[in-house]
Amino acid sequence: MAETLPRTIQRLVKVLAKLPGVGGRTAMRFALHLVRAGEESLLDVATAVTDVAESVQLCDRCFALTENSTVCGICNDPIRADGRICIVEGFGDVIALEGTGLFGGRYFVLHKLLSPLKGIGPEELRIDRLMARVKAEQITEVVLATPLTTDGETTATYLSRVLTQAGARVTRLASGVPVGGSIEYLDHMTLTRAFQDRKDF
Amino acid sequence: MAETLPRTIQRLVKVLAKLPGVGGRTAMRFALHLVRAGEESLLDVATAVTDVAESVQLCDRCFALTENSTVCGICNDPIRADGRICIVEGFGDVIALEGTGLFGGRYFVLHKLLSPLKGIGPEELRIDRLMARVKAEQITEVVLATPLTTDGETTATYLSRVLTQAGARVTRLASGVPVGGSIEYLDHMTLTRAFQDRKDF
Repeated sequence: MAETLPRTIQRLVKVLAKLPGVGGRTAMRFALHLVRAGEESLLDVATAVTDVAESVQLCDRCFALTENSTVCGICNDPIRADGRICIVEGFGDVIALEGTGLFGGRYFVLHKLLSPLKGIGPEELRIDRLMARVKAEQITEVVLATPLTTDGETTATYLSRVLTQAGARVTRLASGVPVGGSIEYLDHMTLTRAFQDRKDF
Repeated sequence: MAETLPRTIQRLVKVLAKLPGVGGRTAMRFALHLVRAGEESLLDVATAVTDVAESVQLCDRCFALTENSTVCGICNDPIRADGRICIVEGFGDVIALEGTGLFGGRYFVLHKLLSPLKGIGPEELRIDRLMARVKAEQITEVVLATPLTTDGETTATYLSRVLTQAGARVTRLASGVPVGGSIEYLDHMTLTRAFQDRKDF
Protein backbone atom coordinates (compact mmCIF):
# COMPACT_ATOMS: atom_id res chain seq x y z
CA MET A 1 0.00 0.00 0.00
CA ALA A 2 2.73 2.44 0.98
CA GLU A 3 3.90 2.61 -2.62
CA THR A 4 0.53 2.41 -4.33
CA LEU A 5 -1.19 5.14 -2.38
CA PRO A 6 -0.03 8.69 -3.16
CA ARG A 7 1.75 10.19 -0.15
CA THR A 8 -0.67 13.12 0.16
CA ILE A 9 -3.59 10.67 0.36
CA GLN A 10 -1.75 8.66 3.01
CA ARG A 11 -1.43 11.84 5.03
CA LEU A 12 -5.11 12.71 4.53
CA VAL A 13 -6.08 9.22 5.75
CA LYS A 14 -3.96 9.76 8.86
CA VAL A 15 -5.59 13.13 9.57
CA LEU A 16 -9.13 11.81 9.00
CA ALA A 17 -8.47 8.79 11.24
CA LYS A 18 -8.27 11.22 14.17
CA LEU A 19 -11.99 11.97 13.87
CA PRO A 20 -14.05 10.37 16.64
CA GLY A 21 -15.10 6.80 15.86
CA VAL A 22 -13.16 6.75 12.59
CA GLY A 23 -10.60 3.98 12.10
CA GLY A 24 -8.07 3.49 9.34
CA ARG A 25 -10.47 1.73 6.99
CA THR A 26 -13.18 4.37 7.30
CA ALA A 27 -10.61 7.15 6.93
CA MET A 28 -9.42 5.48 3.72
CA ARG A 29 -13.02 5.30 2.49
CA PHE A 30 -13.49 9.01 3.26
CA ALA A 31 -10.24 9.95 1.53
CA LEU A 32 -10.95 7.94 -1.62
CA HIS A 33 -14.49 9.29 -1.70
CA LEU A 34 -13.16 12.85 -1.65
CA VAL A 35 -10.62 12.04 -4.35
CA ARG A 36 -13.34 10.48 -6.50
CA ALA A 37 -15.60 13.47 -5.93
CA GLY A 38 -12.93 15.61 -7.56
CA GLU A 39 -10.87 18.71 -6.99
CA GLU A 40 -13.82 21.02 -6.40
CA SER A 41 -15.14 18.85 -3.55
CA LEU A 42 -11.68 18.63 -2.01
CA LEU A 43 -11.31 22.41 -2.07
CA ASP A 44 -14.85 22.78 -0.63
CA VAL A 45 -13.76 20.76 2.39
CA ALA A 46 -10.49 22.65 2.71
CA THR A 47 -12.25 26.02 2.56
CA ALA A 48 -14.95 24.99 5.04
CA VAL A 49 -12.33 23.83 7.54
CA THR A 50 -10.10 26.87 7.04
CA ASP A 51 -13.05 29.24 7.47
CA VAL A 52 -13.88 27.65 10.82
CA ALA A 53 -10.24 27.91 11.91
CA GLU A 54 -10.15 31.56 10.96
CA SER A 55 -13.47 32.84 12.26
CA VAL A 56 -14.59 30.70 15.19
CA GLN A 57 -13.38 31.42 18.71
CA LEU A 58 -14.55 31.02 22.30
CA CYS A 59 -16.96 33.63 23.64
CA ASP A 60 -15.22 35.83 26.19
CA ARG A 61 -18.11 35.54 28.62
CA CYS A 62 -19.64 32.06 28.40
CA PHE A 63 -16.83 30.20 26.54
CA ALA A 64 -19.30 28.82 23.99
CA LEU A 65 -18.37 29.33 20.34
CA THR A 66 -18.66 32.63 18.56
CA GLU A 67 -17.91 33.76 15.03
CA ASN A 68 -16.13 36.94 14.00
CA SER A 69 -16.75 38.54 17.41
CA THR A 70 -15.46 38.17 20.96
CA VAL A 71 -18.90 37.71 22.52
CA CYS A 72 -21.48 35.19 21.28
CA GLY A 73 -25.02 35.91 20.07
CA ILE A 74 -26.62 34.64 23.27
CA CYS A 75 -24.41 36.74 25.57
CA ASN A 76 -25.03 39.74 23.31
CA ASP A 77 -28.81 39.32 23.31
CA PRO A 78 -30.43 41.41 26.10
CA ILE A 79 -33.52 39.14 26.03
CA ARG A 80 -31.34 36.27 27.26
CA ALA A 81 -30.57 38.24 30.46
CA ASP A 82 -33.39 36.54 32.37
CA GLY A 83 -31.42 35.91 35.56
CA ARG A 84 -30.69 32.25 34.71
CA ILE A 85 -27.46 30.62 33.70
CA CYS A 86 -27.01 27.01 32.61
CA ILE A 87 -23.71 25.24 33.17
CA VAL A 88 -22.69 22.65 30.61
CA GLU A 89 -19.57 20.67 29.80
CA GLY A 90 -19.27 21.41 26.09
CA PHE A 91 -20.59 23.42 23.19
CA GLY A 92 -22.53 20.42 21.88
CA ASP A 93 -24.64 20.60 25.05
CA VAL A 94 -25.52 24.23 24.28
CA ILE A 95 -26.74 23.18 20.82
CA ALA A 96 -28.80 20.33 22.29
CA LEU A 97 -30.40 22.58 24.92
CA GLU A 98 -31.10 25.37 22.43
CA GLY A 99 -32.77 22.69 20.29
CA THR A 100 -35.43 22.20 23.00
CA GLY A 101 -36.28 25.90 22.98
CA LEU A 102 -37.01 25.62 26.72
CA PHE A 103 -34.22 27.72 28.14
CA GLY A 104 -34.18 31.47 27.70
CA GLY A 105 -31.15 32.29 29.82
CA ARG A 106 -27.43 32.24 29.18
CA TYR A 107 -24.75 29.57 29.39
CA PHE A 108 -21.40 28.85 30.93
CA VAL A 109 -19.30 26.22 29.13
CA LEU A 110 -16.75 24.45 31.33
CA HIS A 111 -14.91 22.53 28.55
CA LYS A 112 -13.56 20.27 31.32
CA LEU A 113 -14.99 18.46 34.30
CA LEU A 114 -13.47 18.22 37.75
CA SER A 115 -11.51 15.02 37.99
CA PRO A 116 -9.34 14.12 40.98
CA LEU A 117 -8.06 11.15 38.94
CA LYS A 118 -6.93 13.30 36.00
CA GLY A 119 -5.79 16.07 38.34
CA ILE A 120 -8.29 18.62 37.02
CA GLY A 121 -9.19 21.12 39.74
CA PRO A 122 -11.60 24.10 39.95
CA GLU A 123 -9.10 26.63 38.59
CA GLU A 124 -9.06 24.87 35.19
CA LEU A 125 -12.84 25.26 34.96
CA ARG A 126 -12.60 29.06 35.31
CA ILE A 127 -15.02 29.01 38.24
CA ASP A 128 -13.86 32.51 39.19
CA ARG A 129 -15.28 33.77 35.88
CA LEU A 130 -18.54 31.99 36.60
CA MET A 131 -18.81 33.49 40.08
CA ALA A 132 -18.07 36.97 38.71
CA ARG A 133 -20.89 36.55 36.19
CA VAL A 134 -23.35 35.27 38.82
CA LYS A 135 -22.79 38.51 40.71
CA ALA A 136 -22.57 40.93 37.79
CA GLU A 137 -25.62 39.54 35.93
CA GLN A 138 -27.80 39.21 39.04
CA ILE A 139 -28.32 35.52 38.50
CA THR A 140 -31.21 34.00 40.46
CA GLU A 141 -30.99 30.41 39.20
CA VAL A 142 -28.05 28.32 38.09
CA VAL A 143 -29.10 25.16 36.20
CA LEU A 144 -26.48 22.39 36.38
CA ALA A 145 -26.49 20.38 33.16
CA THR A 146 -23.22 18.48 33.50
CA PRO A 147 -23.33 14.84 32.39
CA LEU A 148 -24.39 12.07 34.76
CA THR A 149 -20.93 10.56 34.91
CA THR A 150 -18.61 10.36 37.89
CA ASP A 151 -16.75 13.53 36.85
CA GLY A 152 -20.00 15.25 35.88
CA GLU A 153 -21.49 14.51 39.29
CA THR A 154 -18.32 15.57 41.10
CA THR A 155 -18.42 18.85 39.19
CA ALA A 156 -22.13 19.39 39.90
CA THR A 157 -21.63 18.71 43.61
CA TYR A 158 -18.71 21.14 43.80
CA LEU A 159 -20.49 23.87 41.84
CA SER A 160 -23.65 23.45 43.88
CA ARG A 161 -21.66 24.02 47.08
CA VAL A 162 -19.82 27.18 45.98
CA LEU A 163 -22.85 28.64 44.23
CA THR A 164 -25.17 28.06 47.20
CA GLN A 165 -22.58 29.74 49.42
CA ALA A 166 -22.74 32.72 47.06
CA GLY A 167 -26.50 32.85 47.54
CA ALA A 168 -27.67 31.50 44.17
CA ARG A 169 -30.49 28.99 43.71
CA VAL A 170 -28.98 25.88 42.15
CA THR A 171 -31.02 23.33 40.17
CA ARG A 172 -30.05 20.14 38.36
CA LEU A 173 -31.57 18.47 35.28
CA ALA A 174 -33.86 15.59 36.26
CA SER A 175 -32.54 12.09 35.72
CA GLY A 176 -34.54 8.94 35.03
CA VAL A 177 -35.93 6.72 32.31
CA PRO A 178 -35.20 8.21 28.85
CA VAL A 179 -38.24 8.80 26.63
CA GLY A 180 -38.75 5.68 24.53
CA GLY A 181 -36.46 3.73 26.85
CA SER A 182 -37.38 0.28 28.11
CA ILE A 183 -37.34 -0.50 31.81
CA GLU A 184 -36.03 -4.02 31.27
CA TYR A 185 -32.77 -2.97 29.67
CA LEU A 186 -32.17 0.20 31.68
CA ASP A 187 -28.88 0.28 33.53
CA HIS A 188 -29.01 -0.27 37.25
CA MET A 189 -27.96 3.27 38.25
CA THR A 190 -30.55 5.01 36.06
CA LEU A 191 -33.31 2.72 37.28
CA THR A 192 -32.32 3.38 40.90
CA ARG A 193 -32.48 7.15 40.28
CA ALA A 194 -35.78 6.90 38.43
CA PHE A 195 -37.28 4.89 41.26
CA GLN A 196 -35.97 7.17 44.01
CA ASP A 197 -37.20 10.29 42.22
CA ARG A 198 -40.64 8.86 41.33
CA LYS A 199 -43.47 11.40 41.23
CA ASP A 200 -47.21 11.32 41.89
CA PHE A 201 -49.05 10.43 38.73
CA MET B 1 -29.66 25.75 16.26
CA ALA B 2 -29.36 27.99 13.23
CA GLU B 3 -28.60 30.92 15.50
CA THR B 4 -26.50 29.11 18.07
CA LEU B 5 -24.14 27.38 15.70
CA PRO B 6 -21.64 29.67 13.94
CA ARG B 7 -22.37 29.81 10.21
CA THR B 8 -18.94 28.51 9.22
CA ILE B 9 -19.47 25.44 11.41
CA GLN B 10 -22.90 24.90 9.86
CA ARG B 11 -21.23 24.89 6.48
CA LEU B 12 -18.51 22.49 7.64
CA VAL B 13 -21.21 20.11 8.96
CA LYS B 14 -22.91 20.23 5.57
CA VAL B 15 -19.67 19.45 3.75
CA LEU B 16 -18.73 16.60 6.12
CA ALA B 17 -22.22 15.10 5.84
CA LYS B 18 -21.41 14.30 2.21
CA LEU B 19 -18.83 11.71 3.31
CA PRO B 20 -20.02 8.13 2.76
CA GLY B 21 -22.06 6.79 5.68
CA VAL B 22 -21.95 10.10 7.54
CA GLY B 23 -25.27 11.66 8.55
CA GLY B 24 -25.98 15.04 10.05
CA ARG B 25 -25.36 13.96 13.64
CA THR B 26 -22.01 12.35 12.87
CA ALA B 27 -20.98 15.33 10.75
CA MET B 28 -21.80 17.59 13.70
CA ARG B 29 -19.71 15.36 15.98
CA PHE B 30 -16.80 15.55 13.52
CA ALA B 31 -17.09 19.33 13.22
CA LEU B 32 -17.25 19.96 16.96
CA HIS B 33 -14.37 17.53 17.49
CA LEU B 34 -12.23 19.51 15.05
CA VAL B 35 -13.23 22.81 16.68
CA ARG B 36 -12.36 21.40 20.11
CA ALA B 37 -9.04 20.10 18.81
CA GLY B 38 -8.14 23.67 17.97
CA GLU B 39 -6.92 25.81 15.13
CA GLU B 40 -3.81 23.74 14.42
CA SER B 41 -5.83 20.56 13.91
CA LEU B 42 -8.26 22.40 11.65
CA LEU B 43 -5.44 23.74 9.50
CA ASP B 44 -3.87 20.24 9.42
CA VAL B 45 -7.05 18.90 7.85
CA ALA B 46 -7.31 21.83 5.44
CA THR B 47 -3.71 21.40 4.31
CA ALA B 48 -4.01 17.63 3.92
CA VAL B 49 -7.11 18.03 1.76
CA THR B 50 -5.65 20.89 -0.31
CA ASP B 51 -2.44 18.93 -0.93
CA VAL B 52 -4.44 16.02 -2.31
CA ALA B 53 -6.46 18.38 -4.54
CA GLU B 54 -3.27 19.93 -5.86
CA SER B 55 -1.05 16.92 -6.41
CA VAL B 56 -3.21 13.86 -7.07
CA GLN B 57 -4.48 13.07 -10.57
CA LEU B 58 -5.44 10.10 -12.68
CA CYS B 59 -2.64 8.15 -14.34
CA ASP B 60 -2.69 8.73 -18.08
CA ARG B 61 -2.28 5.02 -18.79
CA CYS B 62 -4.18 3.01 -16.19
CA PHE B 63 -6.43 5.73 -14.69
CA ALA B 64 -5.35 4.80 -11.16
CA LEU B 65 -4.17 7.67 -8.95
CA THR B 66 -0.79 9.31 -9.34
CA GLU B 67 0.92 12.13 -7.52
CA ASN B 68 2.91 14.95 -9.11
CA SER B 69 3.29 13.03 -12.38
CA THR B 70 1.12 12.02 -15.31
CA VAL B 71 1.96 8.32 -15.09
CA CYS B 72 1.71 6.28 -11.88
CA GLY B 73 4.49 4.34 -10.18
CA ILE B 74 3.19 0.97 -11.36
CA CYS B 75 2.93 2.03 -15.02
CA ASN B 76 6.39 3.58 -14.76
CA ASP B 77 7.97 0.48 -13.25
CA PRO B 78 9.46 -1.76 -16.00
CA ILE B 79 9.28 -4.78 -13.67
CA ARG B 80 5.49 -4.51 -13.74
CA ALA B 81 5.51 -5.11 -17.53
CA ASP B 82 4.95 -8.84 -17.09
CA GLY B 83 2.34 -9.19 -19.82
CA ARG B 84 -0.60 -9.14 -17.41
CA ILE B 85 -3.18 -6.47 -16.82
CA CYS B 86 -5.85 -6.50 -14.13
CA ILE B 87 -9.14 -4.68 -14.69
CA VAL B 88 -10.81 -3.16 -11.62
CA GLU B 89 -13.66 -0.79 -10.96
CA GLY B 90 -11.95 1.67 -8.63
CA PHE B 91 -8.68 2.76 -7.11
CA GLY B 92 -9.60 1.13 -3.79
CA ASP B 93 -9.49 -2.22 -5.60
CA VAL B 94 -5.90 -1.51 -6.72
CA ILE B 95 -4.92 -0.87 -3.10
CA ALA B 96 -6.63 -4.08 -1.94
CA LEU B 97 -4.95 -6.19 -4.67
CA GLU B 98 -1.54 -4.60 -4.07
CA GLY B 99 -2.05 -5.50 -0.41
CA THR B 100 -2.04 -9.20 -1.30
CA GLY B 101 1.32 -8.87 -3.07
CA LEU B 102 0.17 -11.58 -5.50
CA PHE B 103 -0.10 -9.58 -8.69
CA GLY B 104 3.01 -8.30 -10.45
CA GLY B 105 1.37 -6.83 -13.54
CA ARG B 106 -0.34 -3.54 -14.27
CA TYR B 107 -3.87 -2.27 -13.85
CA PHE B 108 -6.69 -0.64 -15.75
CA VAL B 109 -9.20 1.28 -13.63
CA LEU B 110 -12.65 1.62 -15.18
CA HIS B 111 -14.13 4.09 -12.62
CA LYS B 112 -17.54 3.03 -13.92
CA LEU B 113 -19.28 -0.24 -14.71
CA LEU B 114 -21.44 -0.97 -17.73
CA SER B 115 -25.05 -0.43 -16.79
CA PRO B 116 -27.89 -0.56 -19.29
CA LEU B 117 -30.17 0.76 -16.51
CA LYS B 118 -28.03 3.83 -15.85
CA GLY B 119 -27.25 4.22 -19.54
CA ILE B 120 -23.50 3.65 -19.11
CA GLY B 121 -22.04 2.12 -22.25
CA PRO B 122 -18.55 0.88 -23.28
CA GLU B 123 -17.35 4.31 -24.49
CA GLU B 124 -17.56 5.73 -20.93
CA LEU B 125 -15.26 2.96 -19.69
CA ARG B 126 -12.51 3.97 -22.15
CA ILE B 127 -12.36 0.43 -23.54
CA ASP B 128 -10.51 1.77 -26.61
CA ARG B 129 -7.65 2.80 -24.32
CA LEU B 130 -7.65 -0.65 -22.77
CA MET B 131 -7.56 -2.37 -26.16
CA ALA B 132 -4.73 -0.11 -27.30
CA ARG B 133 -2.72 -1.06 -24.21
CA VAL B 134 -3.41 -4.78 -24.66
CA LYS B 135 -1.81 -4.51 -28.10
CA ALA B 136 1.01 -2.08 -27.30
CA GLU B 137 2.11 -3.83 -24.11
CA GLN B 138 1.87 -7.36 -25.55
CA ILE B 139 -0.58 -8.47 -22.88
CA THR B 140 -0.97 -12.24 -22.57
CA GLU B 141 -3.47 -12.35 -19.70
CA VAL B 142 -6.22 -9.96 -18.67
CA VAL B 143 -7.51 -10.62 -15.12
CA LEU B 144 -11.07 -9.40 -14.61
CA ALA B 145 -11.53 -8.19 -11.04
CA THR B 146 -14.82 -6.30 -11.35
CA PRO B 147 -17.23 -6.77 -8.44
CA LEU B 148 -19.70 -9.66 -8.35
CA THR B 149 -22.70 -7.41 -8.79
CA THR B 150 -25.09 -7.25 -11.74
CA ASP B 151 -23.17 -4.35 -13.31
CA GLY B 152 -19.82 -5.94 -12.44
CA GLU B 153 -20.82 -9.19 -14.13
CA THR B 154 -22.25 -7.37 -17.17
CA THR B 155 -18.94 -5.52 -17.49
CA ALA B 156 -16.90 -8.71 -17.09
CA THR B 157 -18.97 -10.51 -19.69
CA TYR B 158 -18.62 -7.66 -22.16
CA LEU B 159 -14.87 -7.27 -21.60
CA SER B 160 -14.31 -10.99 -21.85
CA ARG B 161 -15.99 -11.00 -25.25
CA VAL B 162 -14.08 -8.10 -26.80
CA LEU B 163 -10.75 -9.16 -25.27
CA THR B 164 -11.08 -12.76 -26.42
CA GLN B 165 -11.86 -11.48 -29.93
CA ALA B 166 -8.63 -9.51 -29.73
CA GLY B 167 -6.77 -12.71 -28.90
CA ALA B 168 -6.04 -12.15 -25.19
CA ARG B 169 -6.40 -14.80 -22.51
CA VAL B 170 -9.07 -13.59 -20.10
CA THR B 171 -9.35 -14.82 -16.50
CA ARG B 172 -11.72 -13.91 -13.66
CA LEU B 173 -11.20 -13.87 -9.89
CA ALA B 174 -12.61 -17.01 -8.28
CA SER B 175 -15.85 -16.64 -6.38
CA GLY B 176 -17.05 -18.71 -3.42
CA VAL B 177 -17.15 -18.91 0.35
CA PRO B 178 -15.14 -16.04 1.90
CA VAL B 179 -12.35 -17.04 4.28
CA GLY B 180 -13.79 -17.15 7.78
CA GLY B 181 -17.32 -17.16 6.35
CA SER B 182 -19.99 -19.55 7.61
CA ILE B 183 -21.92 -21.75 5.19
CA GLU B 184 -25.16 -21.38 7.12
CA TYR B 185 -25.46 -17.64 6.66
CA LEU B 186 -23.98 -17.40 3.18
CA ASP B 187 -26.25 -15.80 0.61
CA HIS B 188 -27.91 -18.11 -1.89
CA MET B 189 -26.01 -16.84 -4.94
CA THR B 190 -22.57 -17.19 -3.38
CA LEU B 191 -23.35 -20.67 -2.10
CA THR B 192 -24.61 -21.69 -5.55
CA ARG B 193 -21.35 -20.44 -7.12
CA ALA B 194 -19.21 -22.10 -4.46
CA PHE B 195 -21.01 -25.41 -5.00
CA GLN B 196 -20.84 -25.26 -8.79
CA ASP B 197 -17.14 -24.37 -8.75
CA ARG B 198 -16.19 -26.99 -6.14
CA LYS B 199 -12.70 -28.45 -6.54
CA ASP B 200 -11.09 -31.79 -5.78
CA PHE B 201 -9.70 -31.78 -2.28
